[in-house]
Amino acid sequence: MATGHQPGGSVGTVVTQRVVLFTEDDPFVLESGAHLGPVEVAYETYGALNDDRSNAVIICHALTGDAHAAGLHDGARRPGWWDSIIGPGKPVDTERYHVICTNLLGGCQGTTGPASVDPATGEPYGLRFPLFTMRDLVEVQRALLAHLEIPRLLAAVGGSLGGMQILQWALDHPQEIDAATIVCASSRLTPQNIAFSAVAREAIMRDPGFAGGDYYPGRGPEVGLSIARMMAHITYLSEESMRTKFGRRFQDSDEPRFGFDVDFEVESYLNHQGAVFLDRFDANSYLYLTRVMDYFDAFADIEEIAPRLADMVSRFLVLSFDSDWRFDTTHSREIVRVLNAHRVEVSFREIASPHGHDSFLLPLPEYHDTVRGFLARAADEAGVAEA
Amino acid sequence: MATGHQPGGSVGTVVTQRVVLFTEDDPFVLESGAHLGPVEVAYETYGALNDDRSNAVIICHALTGDAHAAGLHDGARRPGWWDSIIGPGKPVDTERYHVICTNLLGGCQGTTGPASVDPATGEPYGLRFPLFTMRDLVEVQRALLAHLEIPRLLAAVGGSLGGMQILQWALDHPQEIDAATIVCASSRLTPQNIAFSAVAREAIMRDPGFAGGDYYPGRGPEVGLSIARMMAHITYLSEESMRTKFGRRFQDSDEPRFGFDVDFEVESYLNHQGAVFLDRFDANSYLYLTRVMDYFDAFADIEEIAPRLADMVSRFLVLSFDSDWRFDTTHSREIVRVLNAHRVEVSFREIASPHGHDSFLLPLPEYHDTVRGFLARAADEAGVAEA
Repeated sequence: MATGHQPGGSVGTVVTQRVVLFTEDDPFVLESGAHLGPVEVAYETYGALNDDRSNAVIICHALTGDAHAAGLHDGARRPGWWDSIIGPGKPVDTERYHVICTNLLGGCQGTTGPASVDPATGEPYGLRFPLFTMRDLVEVQRALLAHLEIPRLLAAVGGSLGGMQILQWALDHPQEIDAATIVCASSRLTPQNIAFSAVAREAIMRDPGFAGGDYYPGRGPEVGLSIARMMAHITYLSEESMRTKFGRRFQDSDEPRFGFDVDFEVESYLNHQGAVFLDRFDANSYLYLTRVMDYFDAFADIEEIAPRLADMVSRFLVLSFDSDWRFDTTHSREIVRVLNAHRVEVSFREIASPHGHDSFLLPLPEYHDTVRGFLARAADEAGVAEA
Repeated sequence: MATGHQPGGSVGTVVTQRVVLFTEDDPFVLESGAHLGPVEVAYETYGALNDDRSNAVIICHALTGDAHAAGLHDGARRPGWWDSIIGPGKPVDTERYHVICTNLLGGCQGTTGPASVDPATGEPYGLRFPLFTMRDLVEVQRALLAHLEIPRLLAAVGGSLGGMQILQWALDHPQEIDAATIVCASSRLTPQNIAFSAVAREAIMRDPGFAGGDYYPGRGPEVGLSIARMMAHITYLSEESMRTKFGRRFQDSDEPRFGFDVDFEVESYLNHQGAVFLDRFDANSYLYLTRVMDYFDAFADIEEIAPRLADMVSRFLVLSFDSDWRFDTTHSREIVRVLNAHRVEVSFREIASPHGHDSFLLPLPEYHDTVRGFLARAADEAGVAEA
């Protein structure tokens, strides 16, 4: 165990807020040139903004996350998805930082997405929702910060797709984030990464319940979305963590029942994950957000971004986990390689963890201490008062 | 390149034969105690059986294989699935060996399986087909050998599920096979292995076209079976081979088309694999054969098999491929570990190959030379005349 790890407390009861940032008359202009309005954004904040507005930390969520990153909704028993790292005394210390988390554009937890009503038709967008990019995800979050009158970020923290947003953000706006914290992310997906997402999308889109994306107000392609989620879960766990969690144990007895029903514990786990996902996620959002990741290629036009890398104020922390095979360490090393080649300050660490890609959600001491220290140093240098 | 590699020729035109080995009145008794009859078996042979019937080599096929391992069916352009290794002058040299390959019990290419008519009802079995085991797969092949009056095997060769059959065969009948050649197989699946198969089965069984398995004569759960096949293909290729084959290239142009249709080359490949599979495979067979693998646990009762290991006449060759992550080298090492611990003679080799699990189907010189030498040595010792 690393030293200095203190679990910390909870931010307590929180509420999700919503704000309309763009309207039909003043729409959001996407990277593609498409116009989108209204755009409403759901977000949560934890901890107080200081007087000189210098202690803001944005949390960017991963594929199936939402704005509810920490604390408890009224009456809920399960805290937000990243409560392990956000809270008083935790690495993202809400006694020192003002923490903001939004639901992403195209999401399904309060921010405008494919399930929202298209004012042009009065019907949900479905697949008529414009295809958007990593840059668009960033710009909507920047619009929220402008609305909140937060001029710059002490830090940005995100895992997986969350880290990809932060990379794009820093490349597009190299003077806006002090401490860019990119956990188990990628500058571009491998064909294997794309392959898993492609099969997931096929499962969704070929489900008769998909109806070309126009399944609202029904639940739509429940089989396809469950299959997608089950497959994704395999990639979130490591071989080792599956051995530890499930082994070859059977669900109900010491003996196999020999049949096609759920029998092994690992089958029961996956079925459960597939089923509960239906209650909280929209299939169309799954399509859009996975496709954003497929097309993302942060360093594709290195000549275009070189000047911005030269202007980079952000200091980077890039973390990977040694058992993560969804985005293994070579993804992180590639980010580090390009940043290093352009003289950007970057700390890189591969954290030992048996828990695969899901490690970023877990309170691993070495991981948390590293994030804690990285943010605290940025805060010290920015003159943010200690908690 | 290893030395001594000679590609060899083709066995030419071949036909699949069929024989009824068990009848309703004289049924096959499964390990479970269930009775099954009639059982018809499809098989092919290549090369002549010698006078003292000592040169027989059985080929055991993998999950989606069939009896057509080598040569050409009349009018066909694509040879059998393991034509790379079987033929005159090839490692499984049909000028020296008499090679036999059957379609497995429960398969869908001529051997009795879930699509066959249940004489009790006059309807296809569907999921009323009895669940069978690795041992049952072996015993049906042994029944064919008895029918052919082949008392013992010079060698048995198989990859993946094929290798698993050979392991079971040697453990159950330790004096029947001289050279047991087990390629990229496993003595028992990991929870991750099971997980992939479980999701594949869910995709099939939750497809409305599955109809509880009673979809004949229709094609049944085409979406689910395609999804299963696409997912499986991801596990058959290595990350590296996907990079080489597809990279992040687009199918039709240098530029992305930005949409949900097939765009990346890897998507096109997977969709094609999913589609063509429907023409040659039955979804119920996929369920049964993957389930055999899940439940297989060759060394589960080591006390029971220890006496048979002590009687083992078979010499083993166990091969893995370093980029195979479907059944990685730890699976092979586990087989070797147990055999070694019981003083069974075993050669083990991890072959360098970028091609993942699919390597076993490819004519890699080091791999083929190793198999060639292993079989030739057994043949020499058995006094089988050289070609």
